[in-house]
Amino acid sequence: MPVKKEKLLVPREQYLSAGVHIGLTAKTADMEKFIYKVRPNGLAVLNVATIDKRIGYVANMLAGKKNVLVVSRKENGQDAARKFAELIGAKSILGRFMPGSLTNPTYKEFFEPDIIVITDPLADKQVMKEAVQMRIPIIGLADTFNETTFLDVIIPCNNKGKKSLALVYWILAKLITEKRKEKFEATLEDFGYEK
Amino acid sequence: MPVKKEKLLVPREQYLSAGVHIGLTAKTADMEKFIYKVRPNGLAVLNVATIDKRIGYVANMLAGKKNVLVVSRKENGQDAARKFAELIGAKSILGRFMPGSLTNPTYKEFFEPDIIVITDPLADKQVMKEAVQMRIPIIGLADTFNETTFLDVIIPCNNKGKKSLALVYWILAKLITEKRKEKFEATLEDFGYEK
Repeated sequence: MPVKKEKLLVPREQYLSAGVHIGLTAKTADMEKFIYKVRPNGLAVLNVATIDKRIGYVANMLAGKKNVLVVSRKENGQDAARKFAELIGAKSILGRFMPGSLTNPTYKEFFEPDIIVITDPLADKQVMKEAVQMRIPIIGLADTFNETTFLDVIIPCNNKGKKSLALVYWILAKLITEKRKEKFEATLEDFGYEK
Repeated sequence: MPVKKEKLLVPREQYLSAGVHIGLTAKTADMEKFIYKVRPNGLAVLNVATIDKRIGYVANMLAGKKNVLVVSRKENGQDAARKFAELIGAKSILGRFMPGSLTNPTYKEFFEPDIIVITDPLADKQVMKEAVQMRIPIIGLADTFNETTFLDVIIPCNNKGKKSLALVYWILAKLITEKRKEKFEATLEDFGYEK
């Protein structure tokens, strides 16, 4: 059986230097399967090949969608989520999510997306709750300590760090744009990446 | 906030009489989140709304795909998987899965699907292993005792019973066909459903 050479979406070093694989010392049973190892200091580290595979898979899923909502309540994800949404033609909700945005048709900002991307299942709990109620599929970034009960698709990754979030959303935007045969010229810095 | 009425893909009674929600007395940590309750006799029962939501979601995903592989090593899933594959224009592999089918380009039945549907992560372990190696996304039916480590998308359901498997694959086929604006006339019996 021929051995397949590792072929990642970006070089492994780029993932590592953005800390995409870095989890927390705390972990949930839900995320156990994505953990590659626990370092002597107790820090759980995610499997880079799985992160990469899931990013590719989610990009594929989103490329054909028109009506996407991207959410980041957390400050650290906002630059990345904003730029990502802008480039793929999605709506973004950053910061506070107004209850009823997905469930109350009389609310003036009421919105019915086909699919939702959330940056953190804990911080973005309200949107997740409403999406479940409305039966909208949810893609979620999740680190080692997240609960994933309500996520339909999980991208395991460091969803705390600004660099990590910038890289994940940047790769997604790049793949989706390329799949649509559009030009992609955004830099990591446009996504809030700080060296 | 208006209460949304339950709107399932088929009536709840139809799910229940096919036993789609019936799990096993044994359960894995992976599947904990899909379990609605454990009956006094120890039988774990899956959440019907989640089953329904995931079926709809997977149908959406598959509707746009051309190069799909459907696998069922288990006898009880073969009628359903065969008919499903036939109706959506997928390839099916039923019974024994020849090692190398996905990894060895010199093998005459070598095949490179864009996405794979497996009926049981335990019975279909070999295809799962090869799909992981080839980085092909895997959709898997999974009951309360399955491990889901290598599944990218999970349809929680009874993947043991003939009726349950017939119903799940029938709904999937129906939704995909309708999404493609094609006519759907297959009966549950065509999928191996026995009253």
